[in-house]
Amino acid sequence: MTSTVDVQQTSAYDLGPARALSCRECGHQIPLAAEFACAECFGPLEVAYEFGNITRADIEAGPQSIWRYRGLLPVPTDVAAHPNTDPGMTRLVKADRLAAALGVKSLWVKDDTGNPTHSFKDRVVAVALAAARQLGFSVLACPSTGNLANAVAAAAARAGWDSVVLIPSSLERAKILTTAVYDGALIAVDGNYDDVNRLATELAAEHENWAFVNVNVRPYYAEGSKTLGYEVAEQLGWRLPRQIVVPVASGSQLTKVDKAFRELGELGLVEATPYRVFGAQATGCSPVSTAFKSGHDVIRPVKPDTIARSLAIGAPADGPYVLDSVRRTGGAVEDVTDAEVVEGIRLLARTEGIFAETAGGVTVATAKKLIESGQIDPDAETVLLITGDGLKTLDAVQDHIGPRATIPPTAAAVREVLARG
Amino acid sequence: MTSTVDVQQTSAYDLGPARALSCRECGHQIPLAAEFACAECFGPLEVAYEFGNITRADIEAGPQSIWRYRGLLPVPTDVAAHPNTDPGMTRLVKADRLAAALGVKSLWVKDDTGNPTHSFKDRVVAVALAAARQLGFSVLACPSTGNLANAVAAAAARAGWDSVVLIPSSLERAKILTTAVYDGALIAVDGNYDDVNRLATELAAEHENWAFVNVNVRPYYAEGSKTLGYEVAEQLGWRLPRQIVVPVASGSQLTKVDKAFRELGELGLVEATPYRVFGAQATGCSPVSTAFKSGHDVIRPVKPDTIARSLAIGAPADGPYVLDSVRRTGGAVEDVTDAEVVEGIRLLARTEGIFAETAGGVTVATAKKLIESGQIDPDAETVLLITGDGLKTLDAVQDHIGPRATIPPTAAAVREVLARG
Repeated sequence: MTSTVDVQQTSAYDLGPARALSCRECGHQIPLAAEFACAECFGPLEVAYEFGNITRADIEAGPQSIWRYRGLLPVPTDVAAHPNTDPGMTRLVKADRLAAALGVKSLWVKDDTGNPTHSFKDRVVAVALAAARQLGFSVLACPSTGNLANAVAAAAARAGWDSVVLIPSSLERAKILTTAVYDGALIAVDGNYDDVNRLATELAAEHENWAFVNVNVRPYYAEGSKTLGYEVAEQLGWRLPRQIVVPVASGSQLTKVDKAFRELGELGLVEATPYRVFGAQATGCSPVSTAFKSGHDVIRPVKPDTIARSLAIGAPADGPYVLDSVRRTGGAVEDVTDAEVVEGIRLLARTEGIFAETAGGVTVATAKKLIESGQIDPDAETVLLITGDGLKTLDAVQDHIGPRATIPPTAAAVREVLARG
Repeated sequence: MTSTVDVQQTSAYDLGPARALSCRECGHQIPLAAEFACAECFGPLEVAYEFGNITRADIEAGPQSIWRYRGLLPVPTDVAAHPNTDPGMTRLVKADRLAAALGVKSLWVKDDTGNPTHSFKDRVVAVALAAARQLGFSVLACPSTGNLANAVAAAAARAGWDSVVLIPSSLERAKILTTAVYDGALIAVDGNYDDVNRLATELAAEHENWAFVNVNVRPYYAEGSKTLGYEVAEQLGWRLPRQIVVPVASGSQLTKVDKAFRELGELGLVEATPYRVFGAQATGCSPVSTAFKSGHDVIRPVKPDTIARSLAIGAPADGPYVLDSVRRTGGAVEDVTDAEVVEGIRLLARTEGIFAETAGGVTVATAKKLIESGQIDPDAETVLLITGDGLKTLDAVQDHIGPRATIPPTAAAVREVLARG
């Protein structure tokens, strides 16, 4: 298990089963703290655990939120008692009509649009908030271009914390409104996302009570994505799917779903059956897919150009670990064009009644491509992760859909439209 | 109980505990069918039941959706086995920060934005679809200006049914897109909502396989709102709240929440403690509030003029029954201005991190007004129903919120903004 603990210090914090931060590169461990980079080698730090005895019954008796998995997360035992957004336990939908359209036998869609601000970011932010509270922070912050901004502003409002959310000033008005409504300090920065990100890192170093969820408390934040893996397994009746397709932005989510599946097997909560993890990218920002297909270990950064903006990270921090996961499990990384993304959104909507954001279109279209190329086994069960809501990316579909006709208010006119089909 | 059954015929349909349709005015009963008006007096028909022995344990062992209450709904026992959107079991949020802002002791928010298409309409449409399947329909239809259109188009897509959704051609582009994406027959009608509604009634009479959810299968559809009441009671730990505030459009939802509370008490699933039901309207469409405040029994229709479009029904069909419910329980109906609606949306967002549509703003602002006037007891527990999502009514808030500032990408500029407060 990646989570072996060497550091034997007693932590000053109650972060449940979390015992240390461990460098993913050199393995150096430090006590739990608000650190994200290894002092020895600058590698990324990850939470290391000492899990207690956890049973399915314990989990099933827990709340209908990610806190049912609190024994597997870096959060205090009483986490559910503190105000938070309490996301998770979103629907796992048996997608028979999409399965038929894609030519596979058994398909499930994990629909994370049901979260409080309608994306999986509520999961990671909720864990970050819970950990940040223990670590002594009092302001929740992030640089973001969309879903993360929503999630941070909402969680801070719910908790009664101040928030500082930095966005590029060019962001679309709708995305600004959905964050501004929570009334934190939403600050528009003249610059691109890289400029905003650099500013966040600088501010995190200056303000010791500011928890930038994806910067100085990133090791805790990232663990929130494990809950997607836990829920899929529990909702399947405590077993692992054979194949899962996960969208890749920084790559963190994919590696954490993989980690969740391994942990469940190691803890005996599921049978450790083989599974394959597939990564999905938009061709306009496909550095991990490119590296995978060319057999490289190094990710060459790109300048993103895709409608799938929530996946548009040109230099994905966890890209190398994505390659590790997909190669170890026998999966793959593939990418799809923006036209395929739109068709993926529409296919999911018309077959299953689920309206996904562009990242969901990437997942569906990539699954289709992997099925067609034979990389996904059509006879083995597959799960698709739909991580955000189409209501937030209406611009991506607006030129492609609309009413079938505009008619006078008569029954004859309706019949005529339907006769045309 | 309102649901006493006189008709002793054996139904041709498996609609669970439903046994007949009963006129709310004259009590005349007919066998279960796709009828909505009494042949004797033209009064509205309502489902009458013969409930079996239902325990808390039965319900708790059911799915995490409204189908856990299938024994209390006009749907077949195997309803969960057929493709549907499976809404419900949305969060009941303990709203301590909103409670403090409003000056009440104990407050809960039922957050129905977590449903599949992000409004309570998924509940009524899911029940309508399940009943329509039993009644032999094969097309799902509605006239709508928003949330209902989304819910019908999505549910039909999921079920593999054709859908016919009629909207006024003047509808905002965003609302058109969120329905069009599901690829049913979305038809824009040159006319206002009344024209569209008349057209729907005409089409329902002509097409025997079209289930217009809110017309010819309305008695079944309306029962879906009971699940809001069931969930509130179960999520409170199987007890009734003392006070509940419900938005009023047609008035159906409020009467069904009241019905749900009564049924739970009569079935012994909760202690039949007293509760008070309050109705919330926008002043620009407040026919029920006007009738309540003037002590009338008759609702005088109005021409709606409010930003709360999902509540803009000028001639609410269930208005008189709303008056019955609030008067019987010792509640009230109140209305608030559009400015108060916007402030209600913002208050809920900044205190609890929940972004509601305009109808939610109406509920919060009305609760505030009822608390200030002493009609809601600040010492008794209160539940607010938030029935739709702010992402769908961004236009209502867009002139009121935005970034705190636009700055160059420097830490000094951020500090300056925050110093201004």
